[in-house]
Amino acid sequence: MHPKRTAFFVSDRTGITAEMLGHSLLTQFDGMPFQEVTVPFIDTPEKAHELVAQINERGVIQGARPLVISTLVDTEVSRILAGADACYLDCFQTFIQPLESELGLRSSHTVGRTHSAHDVLNYHERIEAINFAMGHDDGVSTRDLNDADLVLVGVSRCGKTPTCLYLALQYGVRAANYPLVPEDFAAMRLPASLSHLKGKLYGLTIQPERLMQVRNERRPGSGYANLANCQFEVREAEALMRQEGIAYLDTTHKSIEELATTILHNARLQRRIY
Amino acid sequence: MHPKRTAFFVSDRTGITAEMLGHSLLTQFDGMPFQEVTVPFIDTPEKAHELVAQINERGVIQGARPLVISTLVDTEVSRILAGADACYLDCFQTFIQPLESELGLRSSHTVGRTHSAHDVLNYHERIEAINFAMGHDDGVSTRDLNDADLVLVGVSRCGKTPTCLYLALQYGVRAANYPLVPEDFAAMRLPASLSHLKGKLYGLTIQPERLMQVRNERRPGSGYANLANCQFEVREAEALMRQEGIAYLDTTHKSIEELATTILHNARLQRRIY
Repeated sequence: MHPKRTAFFVSDRTGITAEMLGHSLLTQFDGMPFQEVTVPFIDTPEKAHELVAQINERGVIQGARPLVISTLVDTEVSRILAGADACYLDCFQTFIQPLESELGLRSSHTVGRTHSAHDVLNYHERIEAINFAMGHDDGVSTRDLNDADLVLVGVSRCGKTPTCLYLALQYGVRAANYPLVPEDFAAMRLPASLSHLKGKLYGLTIQPERLMQVRNERRPGSGYANLANCQFEVREAEALMRQEGIAYLDTTHKSIEELATTILHNARLQRRIY
Repeated sequence: MHPKRTAFFVSDRTGITAEMLGHSLLTQFDGMPFQEVTVPFIDTPEKAHELVAQINERGVIQGARPLVISTLVDTEVSRILAGADACYLDCFQTFIQPLESELGLRSSHTVGRTHSAHDVLNYHERIEAINFAMGHDDGVSTRDLNDADLVLVGVSRCGKTPTCLYLALQYGVRAANYPLVPEDFAAMRLPASLSHLKGKLYGLTIQPERLMQVRNERRPGSGYANLANCQFEVREAEALMRQEGIAYLDTTHKSIEELATTILHNARLQRRIY
């Protein structure tokens, strides 16, 4: 039995990079009872000293040295953290030196570079993409559909909305989504408003058993959520997409990040933001 | 004049971690003309060998060794990439060994751990949070507002919607948003539907000049977008929030990630997903 350990993900900014990398490293140790704590905005020596005290205290209480995984741009702040009684891995400091050697340049060690330069442009593209996704969710409007970078199609509740929103937020991609419904299956053709958008269509599908679960959370016991109906809709939607030559992905075992990234990659979309 | 260099962000999964860390490292080298390329899903030796050929070709064409920043779990795939004529930094392999020593355990080196275990639960929480944000955008519904983890308030177009969506996608937090409008300023009190939610309210504000730009993109030349009106609304909204004891953040120079993370942190919200 291993003692419980705390893993601190520390950053001078949002901590999102540190926690993503740190979490992914820790998932490689099966069954270890980690307690994960993200600590953003550690951007002064004072805050760093306070955090060191917290880390040391946690180590004493748990009887196991904490892990500290950080992305700290400021060398002074990183040096202070390195003084904690912990296993300290600084993802930023570890890699900035080999990059300096390779490039023959000193880095600026300035906190907050990541977002500063392109903020206004990125912000604008993201807002436009989010507005687009929200204005074109679930086939609610077919206006300006020509401005879409992508139109996701698939049965109701297969994951179109979160995928569109993630594409908008992470990549600035303007993604609409349009449900495939029983009347499309009866006609065995795409809704008229999509017929001229063939090059922009991408499909999502889902295992009928999973679809049944998701729909039952929304409308328990309905015909809509019934397994036979889910099987019918998924089978017909897949047949329609194959007939129309629309590539599609199964969302059942994929995270929203994986869906968005796979589509960006497979459909060779240009991201609009970094 | 430095030659242009390509930086490859390589991953066996989505590449999001590699590109976030890599991009943040590169922004430390002012004015260097990097070309950033994300290469996700490099999960077989064959794909790795193909990529090595691409990397080497790029180096020859540009006359400068490419940079390769990766998060590769599979040691064989990483070893192949290390054979490229490039400056190679593997964020995963670099840190997994010190972690193994610290923990006294071998890691599983299994690709795809990050999302596997909690997929279904996380997916559910995210979907619920996204549905909540979309169903409670811009004060569109006050139903179930008690289920909100957070209600963002502020003038129209100050950044409430993207912040709510980011909180939903990244943290599974259920965030509603509600606009403060001229009739609230005339009464100098909160809308009645918010008065019982005081502990959940958080404010956003924005510099009037920036608000004018944003509103002009939406409704050019309108009274709504006029500078004097933007100045009035921002001043009144800030006065109202101060009067009601609502903490608020200025969105003008912050990215959506920074806004979401700062609010999560300051309002001590519990994230629902990892």
